[in-house]
Amino acid sequence: MEARVREILSWYASDSPGTRTNLARLLNHGRLAGTGRLVILPVDQGFEHGPARSFAVNPGGYDPSYHFKLAMDAGCNAYAAPLGFLEAGAAEFAGEIPMILKMNNHDVLHDEKDPLSAVTASVKDALRLGCVAVGFTIYPGSTAAQIMYQQCREMIAEAKAHGLAAVVWSYPRGTDISKAGETAIDVVAYAAQIAAQLGAHVIKVKPPTSHIEQADAKKAYEKSAVPVGTLAERVRHVVQSAFNGRRIVIFSGGAAREDDEAIYEECRGIRDGGGFGSIIGRNSFQRPRDKALPFLDNVMKIYAGK
Amino acid sequence: MEARVREILSWYASDSPGTRTNLARLLNHGRLAGTGRLVILPVDQGFEHGPARSFAVNPGGYDPSYHFKLAMDAGCNAYAAPLGFLEAGAAEFAGEIPMILKMNNHDVLHDEKDPLSAVTASVKDALRLGCVAVGFTIYPGSTAAQIMYQQCREMIAEAKAHGLAAVVWSYPRGTDISKAGETAIDVVAYAAQIAAQLGAHVIKVKPPTSHIEQADAKKAYEKSAVPVGTLAERVRHVVQSAFNGRRIVIFSGGAAREDDEAIYEECRGIRDGGGFGSIIGRNSFQRPRDKALPFLDNVMKIYAGK
Amino acid sequence: MEARVREILSWYASDSPGTRTNLARLLNHGRLAGTGRLVILPVDQGFEHGPARSFAVNPGGYDPSYHFKLAMDAGCNAYAAPLGFLEAGAAEFAGEIPMILKMNNHDVLHDEKDPLSAVTASVKDALRLGCVAVGFTIYPGSTAAQIMYQQCREMIAEAKAHGLAAVVWSYPRGTDISKAGETAIDVVAYAAQIAAQLGAHVIKVKPPTSHIEQADAKKAYEKSAVPVGTLAERVRHVVQSAFNGRRIVIFSGGAAREDDEAIYEECRGIRDGGGFGSIIGRNSFQRPRDKALPFLDNVMKIYAGK
Amino acid sequence: MEARVREILSWYASDSPGTRTNLARLLNHGRLAGTGRLVILPVDQGFEHGPARSFAVNPGGYDPSYHFKLAMDAGCNAYAAPLGFLEAGAAEFAGEIPMILKMNNHDVLHDEKDPLSAVTASVKDALRLGCVAVGFTIYPGSTAAQIMYQQCREMIAEAKAHGLAAVVWSYPRGTDISKAGETAIDVVAYAAQIAAQLGAHVIKVKPPTSHIEQADAKKAYEKSAVPVGTLAERVRHVVQSAFNGRRIVIFSGGAAREDDEAIYEECRGIRDGGGFGSIIGRNSFQRPRDKALPFLDNVMKIYAGK
Amino acid sequence: MEARVREILSWYASDSPGTRTNLARLLNHGRLAGTGRLVILPVDQGFEHGPARSFAVNPGGYDPSYHFKLAMDAGCNAYAAPLGFLEAGAAEFAGEIPMILKMNNHDVLHDEKDPLSAVTASVKDALRLGCVAVGFTIYPGSTAAQIMYQQCREMIAEAKAHGLAAVVWSYPRGTDISKAGETAIDVVAYAAQIAAQLGAHVIKVKPPTSHIEQADAKKAYEKSAVPVGTLAERVRHVVQSAFNGRRIVIFSGGAAREDDEAIYEECRGIRDGGGFGSIIGRNSFQRPRDKALPFLDNVMKIYAGK
Repeated sequence: MEARVREILSWYASDSPGTRTNLARLLNHGRLAGTGRLVILPVDQGFEHGPARSFAVNPGGYDPSYHFKLAMDAGCNAYAAPLGFLEAGAAEFAGEIPMILKMNNHDVLHDEKDPLSAVTASVKDALRLGCVAVGFTIYPGSTAAQIMYQQCREMIAEAKAHGLAAVVWSYPRGTDISKAGETAIDVVAYAAQIAAQLGAHVIKVKPPTSHIEQADAKKAYEKSAVPVGTLAERVRHVVQSAFNGRRIVIFSGGAAREDDEAIYEECRGIRDGGGFGSIIGRNSFQRPRDKALPFLDNVMKIYAGK
Repeated sequence: MEARVREILSWYASDSPGTRTNLARLLNHGRLAGTGRLVILPVDQGFEHGPARSFAVNPGGYDPSYHFKLAMDAGCNAYAAPLGFLEAGAAEFAGEIPMILKMNNHDVLHDEKDPLSAVTASVKDALRLGCVAVGFTIYPGSTAAQIMYQQCREMIAEAKAHGLAAVVWSYPRGTDISKAGETAIDVVAYAAQIAAQLGAHVIKVKPPTSHIEQADAKKAYEKSAVPVGTLAERVRHVVQSAFNGRRIVIFSGGAAREDDEAIYEECRGIRDGGGFGSIIGRNSFQRPRDKALPFLDNVMKIYAGK
Repeated sequence: MEARVREILSWYASDSPGTRTNLARLLNHGRLAGTGRLVILPVDQGFEHGPARSFAVNPGGYDPSYHFKLAMDAGCNAYAAPLGFLEAGAAEFAGEIPMILKMNNHDVLHDEKDPLSAVTASVKDALRLGCVAVGFTIYPGSTAAQIMYQQCREMIAEAKAHGLAAVVWSYPRGTDISKAGETAIDVVAYAAQIAAQLGAHVIKVKPPTSHIEQADAKKAYEKSAVPVGTLAERVRHVVQSAFNGRRIVIFSGGAAREDDEAIYEECRGIRDGGGFGSIIGRNSFQRPRDKALPFLDNVMKIYAGK
Repeated sequence: MEARVREILSWYASDSPGTRTNLARLLNHGRLAGTGRLVILPVDQGFEHGPARSFAVNPGGYDPSYHFKLAMDAGCNAYAAPLGFLEAGAAEFAGEIPMILKMNNHDVLHDEKDPLSAVTASVKDALRLGCVAVGFTIYPGSTAAQIMYQQCREMIAEAKAHGLAAVVWSYPRGTDISKAGETAIDVVAYAAQIAAQLGAHVIKVKPPTSHIEQADAKKAYEKSAVPVGTLAERVRHVVQSAFNGRRIVIFSGGAAREDDEAIYEECRGIRDGGGFGSIIGRNSFQRPRDKALPFLDNVMKIYAGK
Repeated sequence: MEARVREILSWYASDSPGTRTNLARLLNHGRLAGTGRLVILPVDQGFEHGPARSFAVNPGGYDPSYHFKLAMDAGCNAYAAPLGFLEAGAAEFAGEIPMILKMNNHDVLHDEKDPLSAVTASVKDALRLGCVAVGFTIYPGSTAAQIMYQQCREMIAEAKAHGLAAVVWSYPRGTDISKAGETAIDVVAYAAQIAAQLGAHVIKVKPPTSHIEQADAKKAYEKSAVPVGTLAERVRHVVQSAFNGRRIVIFSGGAAREDDEAIYEECRGIRDGGGFGSIIGRNSFQRPRDKALPFLDNVMKIYAGK
């Protein structure tokens, strides 16, 4: 095994050999295998935003097989989706791509200020479908955050007891957080810390801006002159906030964008700041397959470049 | 077994042989056996609307035996009802018609804007009564939707673990959805997607109108020029939204109507759009038996016609 | 066994021999044994209204033994009471009178518009005390109805699994129901239907008036010209609403009344409408024992009369 | 064994030999052993009111050993306290005094109008510490009463299943009850009835006043001319309300008072009304030990006197 | 073993040998081993306040290894932290420092007036990681206090059943408590009492001020002239309020302060009042390691001094 993968696994020494084996499967699959970097294809937008908003622009995506094949052919490290999407392909593509079962989901038919995702699957489902990991979204800042932290912690404990890895989507939202605050550097770093303290193996956050949301945090950033001017600096701070780089932190790709170069630039920033990779949904499956494959190829080249 | 049934079963390859056997029982019973189409008789209106509103117009329906016999004599694929109604006939009609146990119910003695159905039966009940499937209503859009998603998911997981199939009634309702929005094409397609992601084998929705409820969805429909002008087009979109047709989607018959031809026309639209059939309660049991049998015969002929 | 009892048991063919045995015990005990009619003595008013309001007028009733003896000496089919009252006599009177354990209770030290009874006993208690059945109150129309339906359903399922029968007190109350609506014919019929759908073997409702509470129901009654002018007609409709008479429906005796003849007239109406009997508490134990025995004798003669 | 103890045990014939053995231990310990009367030392005020308000006046009471010794040396039937206080002496004083584990508690750092005590111990704790009984406070009249009734019922069921006795503190409080109403005769009698119906073996209430709180109750007291003029009459009515004297009812000592004679007079009233004894906390441990011992001696003499 | 340690263990005679063994491990580790005094390093501020506010000033602290080493090299009795921080070092530093798993946590992305911490770990986690104790925060005074008391009690019961010790952080906060009231002598003493009654082995509170918050308490302090003028007097009162000194009470170090002498003075006050030691987080890890080590050395010298 590559030395970098061995090094990463060493950070999870409290975990069972089973869990570390599944982490290794994540790190050793696809075009970035062995580099310690990851590009993951997540497709939960059908549930989170609705089917037409997610798939009408590239209708192949209505079909669950499409995403399995896209993830496989692009050489992603893994494919992450809710129960229904995984069940609809897990048998056909058994053993061909590491799967992450997204265990809770939220829809926008009712969209509340302080969101609480519904638990829509279980660790037992992940085991029965052959997944390497389970995934869970928490919304730090929501008045329902305590409920989600507890559900998340229970999922992580059960995953660890069964030799799976745990991925946490940590997305601050809620009454006390402004729209800008959701991606503020202090808030994103805090979100990464919370996920790490809950026991996550892999943490997914949004790329942070240089905005600082909380007054008490602002004082700390200013007092210690924490550099947050460039994306690379901010990513470095977020990765530092996840146990000084001893937890895998990956960054979401965000809404579909026209300007590919901007995305590549963002990936370079993530890479240069020590981020472990990207989890890119809409920018992958909302473009035609013959454009998605070279796009993901370019992204992976960036991460492989260092 | 008919090739079409084998094809449909292939979409459920992650499920156990037991569950697929029960899906096959649903698809291979009655006059539409082997066609891949279904007409199901559901009778939960006694609970949902009250006994007189449901049965006074055709008083035979007060008797639970009436519906077993109607479903059997009309050649329906299955009969769906709450616990009490099934218990009152399950022994007498054992093995004569596939049964679906409706596991949650709502009444209108208190009718709230954001409904939450009460869980009124269990998977264990379904097994003890010899059912092929369990059924569950979710109300996406209700502030209580998270609770119902979780209950539904647990029911589905338990059904799968015991070799049963799972049917989900997905009816959007709640504070943020207008009356017209409850059957809007974007909302119905979204409801079908949510049920599919929760792991439903069979999904029941209302026939959609061409109204588009949500502003963000409207943009997506317009950008991609999704055709929603005719019922067949809308049904096609809903079926597409349920994993590109890889999940069985059936449509409710709605309130009792005088104009039979309008219902037949609706069934033709469902059929032409690739819908898998109808689940027709009030239009079946609220007319005299000697009119209900030819009516259902006509409906089945339409579905058998293609 | 009497043919009528066999006939009644045949309606419960989905139940285990154990449960049907306990139903037979109910039907075959006391002066109405074998007639298919029941008169039951219920004493939960100490909890529901307070001890002085219940027993001061006839102080013997403070003693739990009093009610066991009254039910036995009057030849009732059964005695129903909360945990404490049954525990205080179950050993002394073991095997002498079928007992129904009332499993939830409500008091008026806090009396809310939308009541929720507290669960105050378990099926395990009923088994340990030698009861033939458990009883449960639901308040359809209460904002807490869902909670009670679920508790009730769980009690019924557990009772059935252990060979007991289940009695449901179905008393509509709550924000959306007027005082007159609590005994309206449409509401009482609906309450009987809900209890039957939840799986109750025996259903207790209040004698209905000819008032119709819900606008949508009114249309149905008028359209089908459902006769609700006399008590016998209304009882017939309620019994019809409980699976066309295939569930045992009994009627509460209500508050203590001076005019015995009015009560007898009510019982005749219940009998003539096909009701299965009465469950008479306050009118039995709030009069002196030497008046209660002939009173109950007269009531039973009415039910035996047809 | 004394005839009176045998007689009392006969009221609990539905209970297991184990539970009756522990009731006998309560009745057969201390200076009142065998009389059927009880004086119990309860010390939960540290939790309920705070340490300084409870113990500053007689600082020996800060030490958990103090109360064990006081109860033992005074010849009390039992010592009742929360988990921490019992754990701090259970090993040292094992087998020397019957212990009652107070299983729920409330503090006044947040003091709400409709109180809900927190469950702070378990039946398993009581077994591990060698207790003869568990104790539980309910607040009838609180909007949280249903929760407490259910917790209490579960505790009682578990205690009975493990051969322990159950003591219920029944203290009406809440929005709908006036301050005077908390000790009104109708309310206290009702509180005793509720505890008895929940299955309590021993019931603790406050000494009632002649005030009648509830309008409907007032009618019943007046109609039947229930005598409530003297404390003895009121106690008699409360004891009657607890299954006509077939449940052990004891009375709380209330806040510390200067006038010992007033307390003795109260105890005489309790005794003359057929009350089973007193549970006296603050009046015992808030005076110096050399005054508490003769004080308790006098109280016990009163109860032994008849 | 030192006589003082034996004496302390004697206060926990109701506990299992396993739990007392782990208490002994706490007391017998580090520079204060055998003295009966403790200095513990707690690091949960990353979760509670955010990573930058906690670690930016001394960035070594972002790394979980830093704190293990700091606690070990300073000779602390134990290191306390949330799940993630412990998991990130438990394997590497196995057996080198007693660990306390902080089982619940709160963050300030949503900061409510009546806080409820989320349960973020389990006793099972503590066992799997090799901890000697579990820790839990309660907020007496919060409207959510009952929930936390019950969670805390369950954690303590489970810890005791598995041979672990239990540490309770008791921090009054909530609607009815003023800011000054959070450290008022009456409130802090009450908080210590509650934790002791819940069964805590070790209690952590804040150093109290001479402010008295509650009117009823004020009367008690004045009546008995409880001395609360100096810190030593107040500490003595708090320790007395924790079962007259028969429970280990330690005091938090509070926010980082410039003036070391003030901290030393505070420690002398705690020591002179009979406090068992300090649990000092921010004042330890927010200064450079080469200043933290002599600082902690001075603190320990103070506690060893008597």
